[in-house]
Amino acid sequence: MVAELISVGTEILLGNIVNTNAAYLAEKCALLGLSIYYQTVVGDNEKRLEATLRAALERSDVVILCGGLGPTQDDLTKETAARVLGRKLVEDPHSKKVIEEYFKNSPMKKITENNWKQAMVPEGCIVVDNHNGTAPGIIMEADHKTVILLPGPPVELEPMFEHDIFPYLRQKQPEVIHSVMVKLCGVSESAVETQIRDLIDQQSNPTIATYAKIGEVHLRVTAHAADEKEAKRLMKPMLKELKNRFGNQIYTMDEHMTLEESVLDMLRERELTLTTAESLTGGLVAARLTDIPGASDVFRQGFVTYSNRAKRKLLDVKKSTLKDFGAVSEKTAKEMAKNGAFISGSDICISLTGLAGPTAEEDKPVGLVYIACSYNNRITVRECHFKGNRAKIRESAVVGVLTLLRECILEDA
Amino acid sequence: MVAELISVGTEILLGNIVNTNAAYLAEKCALLGLSIYYQTVVGDNEKRLEATLRAALERSDVVILCGGLGPTQDDLTKETAARVLGRKLVEDPHSKKVIEEYFKNSPMKKITENNWKQAMVPEGCIVVDNHNGTAPGIIMEADHKTVILLPGPPVELEPMFEHDIFPYLRQKQPEVIHSVMVKLCGVSESAVETQIRDLIDQQSNPTIATYAKIGEVHLRVTAHAADEKEAKRLMKPMLKELKNRFGNQIYTMDEHMTLEESVLDMLRERELTLTTAESLTGGLVAARLTDIPGASDVFRQGFVTYSNRAKRKLLDVKKSTLKDFGAVSEKTAKEMAKNGAFISGSDICISLTGLAGPTAEEDKPVGLVYIACSYNNRITVRECHFKGNRAKIRESAVVGVLTLLRECILEDA
Repeated sequence: MVAELISVGTEILLGNIVNTNAAYLAEKCALLGLSIYYQTVVGDNEKRLEATLRAALERSDVVILCGGLGPTQDDLTKETAARVLGRKLVEDPHSKKVIEEYFKNSPMKKITENNWKQAMVPEGCIVVDNHNGTAPGIIMEADHKTVILLPGPPVELEPMFEHDIFPYLRQKQPEVIHSVMVKLCGVSESAVETQIRDLIDQQSNPTIATYAKIGEVHLRVTAHAADEKEAKRLMKPMLKELKNRFGNQIYTMDEHMTLEESVLDMLRERELTLTTAESLTGGLVAARLTDIPGASDVFRQGFVTYSNRAKRKLLDVKKSTLKDFGAVSEKTAKEMAKNGAFISGSDICISLTGLAGPTAEEDKPVGLVYIACSYNNRITVRECHFKGNRAKIRESAVVGVLTLLRECILEDA
Repeated sequence: MVAELISVGTEILLGNIVNTNAAYLAEKCALLGLSIYYQTVVGDNEKRLEATLRAALERSDVVILCGGLGPTQDDLTKETAARVLGRKLVEDPHSKKVIEEYFKNSPMKKITENNWKQAMVPEGCIVVDNHNGTAPGIIMEADHKTVILLPGPPVELEPMFEHDIFPYLRQKQPEVIHSVMVKLCGVSESAVETQIRDLIDQQSNPTIATYAKIGEVHLRVTAHAADEKEAKRLMKPMLKELKNRFGNQIYTMDEHMTLEESVLDMLRERELTLTTAESLTGGLVAARLTDIPGASDVFRQGFVTYSNRAKRKLLDVKKSTLKDFGAVSEKTAKEMAKNGAFISGSDICISLTGLAGPTAEEDKPVGLVYIACSYNNRITVRECHFKGNRAKIRESAVVGVLTLLRECILEDA
């Protein structure tokens, strides 16, 4: 089945808000095995909304519209959808009661005449209660097509979808979709693409798609079948093949796991503690690690040594090292990692020093970064040349040092 | 002039990523005075992309496509757009050289045959250099229509738009649009809206629009006129009025200035140095500050004290304080700020300790955060209750502590 999303709202067209509803609904539809080929945003304009809905009904089985169900005259999603499907609007006594209840429980808000507009529904539709607002959701079925209207605020839309729309759509789906995200680090997108060219050329079921992230490549493998067991069976040989080809470069096959999370898990399993000694990234590595709940099992403290003086004072980097080799040097990275581990009493210390730009220093180019990892009395240093603006260089350095850390631990095994 | 946005990418259709490019581009187009009536998302599918582009060219003057310019076989935006406009693809020697240079500076990455695909451009187009990746931007003009192709990653798209596409579109616009972004901190969106309700109700030229950010509110004031001088003249009384109403809550009227940048400028002017002592934010404050070039004038080092032991060892927080009041307490925040300033020898230290969740601890609720600022032998502590998920609580804490720091310095004057 093919679904399509239409978001209605001038604030999205003006860029005042990011269309997070579309991402939420798209992910849920993918999970349901519904294919989405189009998402459209259109303003609160009758003519354009009608044209968009008609086009969507031509090409998709399920059309989900969100937004424009409010009580004001601007809001015309329901009126337009009803007209396109040839339905009259009739008063729904149940919705009227729900709206009355809602206002009874919100003494600060006053009911106004136009609130009753929200109790008018297209005849013959399924009305879905809104437990977090006054606009009910609406499901209309006609000529093998389904049109679903949802309120715009995520705080109303998401619980309604979860509770009522998801089960409704699930029972309509004949096929099951199973999808796995294979995440790689330490390899470029084009190198991955070259290594799996033959798999992509032969793909039918499962399919395989590449996504480039900063310093990472993600591969989505998707199979469809009559039931979940069969979909998983179809998937298996492809996943095995990817494991054979990429080995340890695959850091997870869990959709929701990030690189920092997988590194933390790795350290937790081995009961290792980690500290960070950051110069050019200025706390970014620590911030990424502590974004993960439970990071404190592994990560206890970090040093941000942005100046030479701080490198000397907090990390005991030798004055002569800074003088003879400069702050951006293999030797400085090495001392930062070695001393960071010693001073903090951690098993591992990762360090970063480099030039994020925009201006070159010490005759060294922007993008030159030294990353190091001290583990088991061995210090591994790597020289990197990252491209891009300041933010991209810093992000690349973060992923680079996490990848290095991973490699050091895996090599040790 | 009417513009239209087409985002190309299966990862958006699948809900893997939120379409922030559309919001970014929509806001910029609004700034240029371009009307947007439609935004569409379509996958990396030739037929559907072609249909979408043809529909867009029927109804809009400028069509901006983003995504699908990568080196892989999936990426076919350029090929499709060239075909729709009847252009051949030819090799662009300049782009080829740029790609060669890019890989020369990234020794970890290997150039592969498919990278050269990115040097092929539609004949007669304007090629726009990508300083943060390998896919050049492309502008095609035909029959009073303009088609613009941009790379999908925001880190590539945004600088390219800012630097080349914005000026290109500006000179196509007959009227001059002048716009100022008034950025506020330390005040809620609804408080701002209440305070300017009358201005919004009366608005015609200039107009005023509110954008809620985490911990900040931005007001865009836009005037249009025949020339820039006239537009600026129209703008003046409104800006004066906003200054009267919000005073020091306005931290900048510079579009590109961030809160952290304005705080760093403030400290630099006063020749003050700053250090950070972070618990729940785990380096996020330091990372935000060091994202600004030249931060080293003011910020020399930071402490990430995620565990109690680190708070004791690195920041001399008293054992009794942690035992009697807990890590998440006014007293701990105070000692972190006081000792952080002393130990580092900085003029100012800001500290943060709190619960980012997802689980409550020490009988304290998720979202409870204490922020403190030590300056001039005076320590100011503030108790905050932030809402949202872990990431939002951490972000809110960062903005909260920067706002507190600003207030402490301004009060001192």
